[in-house]
Amino acid sequence: MTGQSGSSCGACKFLRRKCTSKCIFSPYFCYPEGASHFAAIHKVFGASNVSKLLSKIPQQNRSEAAISICYEALARMQDPIYGCVAQIFALEQQIASLQEEIDQLVNYMAYDSFNLPNQESLQDLNNMNTWLPFSFGVDDMSI
Amino acid sequence: MTGQSGSSCGACKFLRRKCTSKCIFSPYFCYPEGASHFAAIHKVFGASNVSKLLSKIPQQNRSEAAISICYEALARMQDPIYGCVAQIFALEQQIASLQEEIDQLVNYMAYDSFNLPNQESLQDLNNMNTWLPFSFGVDDMSI
Repeated sequence: MTGQSGSSCGACKFLRRKCTSKCIFSPYFCYPEGASHFAAIHKVFGASNVSKLLSKIPQQNRSEAAISICYEALARMQDPIYGCVAQIFALEQQIASLQEEIDQLVNYMAYDSFNLPNQESLQDLNNMNTWLPFSFGVDDMSI
Repeated sequence: MTGQSGSSCGACKFLRRKCTSKCIFSPYFCYPEGASHFAAIHKVFGASNVSKLLSKIPQQNRSEAAISICYEALARMQDPIYGCVAQIFALEQQIASLQEEIDQLVNYMAYDSFNLPNQESLQDLNNMNTWLPFSFGVDDMSI
């Protein structure tokens, strides 16, 4: 007997066993790379552990669980030291960098809008006269 | 015989076995929560899989590997559907949000600095006269 899709799922192909209609893996590993992805899952988590994990998750959430388990397994195969935690580090660094960029922009805007202008910004104001449809004069350059 | 620290490591405590000087886990699970953390690792990955994984990693990188494995296991126990992938989703959303904030700030600055001023910004320019140490006049309010 075969799994839900009519042929053995990737998990059963990898495990070389018959795929029955009760196979817990078949709804989530019936795609071309199913067997190779399950090989990674088996190596990292073990088929038995994943089977137990899936069986304890409500049916409607098992697909997301299978995807996230597969993602973690493939990441661990690619980076045995950090696995997908490497991506968490990278994203956290990216967030710190973006936050710094925002702080700089906000500081620049606050300085530009509310503080007394320095020589450079006064020069910018004068340069604006060259293209603005009106002109204004800076009476006192010394602050 | 005991592990490197002189007492059984958390892994051997959990597995109820003697901890020898050759224990692959002892350098990384000799802390108060070592046994409970290893219980999560064992449930999610299996002790045997983690032992194999660590043995294939260079000695100097095993500590980071043990930490990242522990992190993944605890995240999976807390969130059986997404595990630590939930954090990756959350961080990616945060990045999208920060990027949007930067785009808005940059657009605002570009408008504020380089576009023709509208009536509101001309009024702002006049209002600046009340506190700037110099004054400028807007010759033509109609654009």
